[in-house]
Amino acid sequence: MGGPAPNLNGSTLEADAPSSLVARFGPDRPLRLDAGVGLTPLTIAYQTYGALNPAKSNAFLICHALTGDQHVANRNPVTGKSGWWETMVGPGKPIDTERFFVICANVLGGCMGTTGPASTNPATGKPYGLDLPLVTIADMVRAQAMLIDHLGIETLFCVAGGSMGGMQVLQWVASYPDRVFSALPIATAARHSSQNIAFHEVGRQAIMADPDWRDGRYLAEGVSPSKGLAVARMAAHITYLSENALHRKFGRKLQDRAARTFSFDADFQVESYLRHQGATFVERFDPNSYLFMTRAMDYFDLAADYGGSLPGAFKDAKTRFCVVSFTSDWLFPTADSRAIVHALNATGASVSFVEVETDKGHDAFLLDEPDLFAATRGFIDAAARARGLRPARSR
Amino acid sequence: MGGPAPNLNGSTLEADAPSSLVARFGPDRPLRLDAGVGLTPLTIAYQTYGALNPAKSNAFLICHALTGDQHVANRNPVTGKSGWWETMVGPGKPIDTERFFVICANVLGGCMGTTGPASTNPATGKPYGLDLPLVTIADMVRAQAMLIDHLGIETLFCVAGGSMGGMQVLQWVASYPDRVFSALPIATAARHSSQNIAFHEVGRQAIMADPDWRDGRYLAEGVSPSKGLAVARMAAHITYLSENALHRKFGRKLQDRAARTFSFDADFQVESYLRHQGATFVERFDPNSYLFMTRAMDYFDLAADYGGSLPGAFKDAKTRFCVVSFTSDWLFPTADSRAIVHALNATGASVSFVEVETDKGHDAFLLDEPDLFAATRGFIDAAARARGLRPARSR
Repeated sequence: MGGPAPNLNGSTLEADAPSSLVARFGPDRPLRLDAGVGLTPLTIAYQTYGALNPAKSNAFLICHALTGDQHVANRNPVTGKSGWWETMVGPGKPIDTERFFVICANVLGGCMGTTGPASTNPATGKPYGLDLPLVTIADMVRAQAMLIDHLGIETLFCVAGGSMGGMQVLQWVASYPDRVFSALPIATAARHSSQNIAFHEVGRQAIMADPDWRDGRYLAEGVSPSKGLAVARMAAHITYLSENALHRKFGRKLQDRAARTFSFDADFQVESYLRHQGATFVERFDPNSYLFMTRAMDYFDLAADYGGSLPGAFKDAKTRFCVVSFTSDWLFPTADSRAIVHALNATGASVSFVEVETDKGHDAFLLDEPDLFAATRGFIDAAARARGLRPARSR
Repeated sequence: MGGPAPNLNGSTLEADAPSSLVARFGPDRPLRLDAGVGLTPLTIAYQTYGALNPAKSNAFLICHALTGDQHVANRNPVTGKSGWWETMVGPGKPIDTERFFVICANVLGGCMGTTGPASTNPATGKPYGLDLPLVTIADMVRAQAMLIDHLGIETLFCVAGGSMGGMQVLQWVASYPDRVFSALPIATAARHSSQNIAFHEVGRQAIMADPDWRDGRYLAEGVSPSKGLAVARMAAHITYLSENALHRKFGRKLQDRAARTFSFDADFQVESYLRHQGATFVERFDPNSYLFMTRAMDYFDLAADYGGSLPGAFKDAKTRFCVVSFTSDWLFPTADSRAIVHALNATGASVSFVEVETDKGHDAFLLDEPDLFAATRGFIDAAARARGLRPARSR
């Protein structure tokens, strides 16, 4: 492969040379994938915040969502913006970096330094593209467990995440019931719904319909299916919000004009906003990685892996749970969280459930939601006491 | 322009040579458009069912939805399928063709014979494409009024339609308050919501991102943005259904396979279904017409045309109304219908309101919904009595 093509964006550069800590696993440690093959070598790019205590009992793993990354609470090297969860993570925040050793790894199949379709396949010297086997949520978690082993941590104090991150939280407890002291799945589900698969399929078709997708070989061919990816992002973005939030924010307001133009310009503010969401997303995300992430979510059905019984997935766990949903989230509605809670109740698990009243939709987990902060702070503080961790510094 | 390119579909052929009755209006009768220009010549393609009575008091106008057409109750010349509203229209049906003279015209900007972007522009000999001015719901209704004049009908017994058809029903009453005896707007709104504009914008961007769109000149250049149009249709189709309906119909069932394939094939039935929806749609609909229709709906805001007052739009009407919504319709939720009812109440209009309990979503107006049939039959029969029409034949 020659030098980077001019259209390679920052994210593509991060794929092989991440601005993060990196753990590398060689041929002696292949990652077993649900697709039935071993993946080697494996690179995991991750960030940490705070310090691991001598007892190694304060490790707090954060799992990121579909288009998130490991840059939870630091300036993002691609966008230049602040971390995606600085509302929740930092000194004195609910996930208090003065108390906890916070870890977040780019997921397997991602595009920010962990092995993914944009990474160079050492066997060919070209980006993997679709030669990388499809990955599952369980594969992502198995890779994270290798990282946790590598860091010498036996038991995680807490695993937390929203949306696809919440799926990983549930999978962590199912796969490693003894290694998760507490779990905080937010705005998520134990299986992806038919409607959500449908929306993901629209996004994938938009990307694959772009002639610059080139059957996934666009990086090697120096092009990019940016238009398709932008359409995929626009469609998905609508599902992250609520009708009320859109109405309140935009209504039918026109964008910098006094009257309709009788054209296909972005007359309405909501159109301009969506186009902006599409345009900025393609600057930071790899199209094949988007295909991989959506497929991993579609394939997620935790009960199916345990004989069709969701309680079966949690039967060996002594993990303390706090399950959080948002009233206006129609992508992962409260009913999905209730199904998790019911399964946990059936196993006699310690579980609290919080439905946060908000009109901000699915994206509420990323936003300024005082009720979310209060609920998670209370849960984490109680779990920390139970774990014998030192109390939060009084402020 | 040479002969038709091989990729021209049936719909494209219908645009200039519809399998319908046709009314033509020459330069002496230009159609005044909201865009501020006159359109001439104008062709309106339409179907009729039943017979106009001597008093010309039994004319029943049906307005079709976004991707509908004039073939309400006959075999569709493009798809070969039965008419789109045969559940509602026919001998002995709620809209009884033995009692009423039923008319449905392809809307202005459509692609089934009424002047639209796929029609040949007589000034150039090429398809209009984006040279046709954008049209509004009010323009569509103004064109329909020209047809009704042409047919020698002064007052319509009833105007009925769902979705974009319902918008036309409301506009008919606002524009021609003395010409509509009764009105039946179904699953519609007096203005298009922010979220709906957002979904439409995704569809437009999908079409315009297809390199074969060619700035709207694809017909003249012998190509077609079919992939973009298919993606637009897939995204829209999800909004026509309900989460429950998708879950009941497809759940997470796999398509003709025992296990996941770890590929981007249509593993899930819902994916296969959506792809089929996209593939069949592009065989029958013109991409530019899709842009025009979605824009017309986005621009619709009836109150805005009457000083911001929805009651103002209805203040001169003596029309009897029946407003219908469906409980699981999240595209045009019941709240949108209630807003119409409240405005009508404020004018002292005669209005009944029916919210049909169903899990079939927005598309319920096209489906077998006994409560819809019963409610509309009751309303239409009562209006017919008030109009002095002969009763339905007993069956």
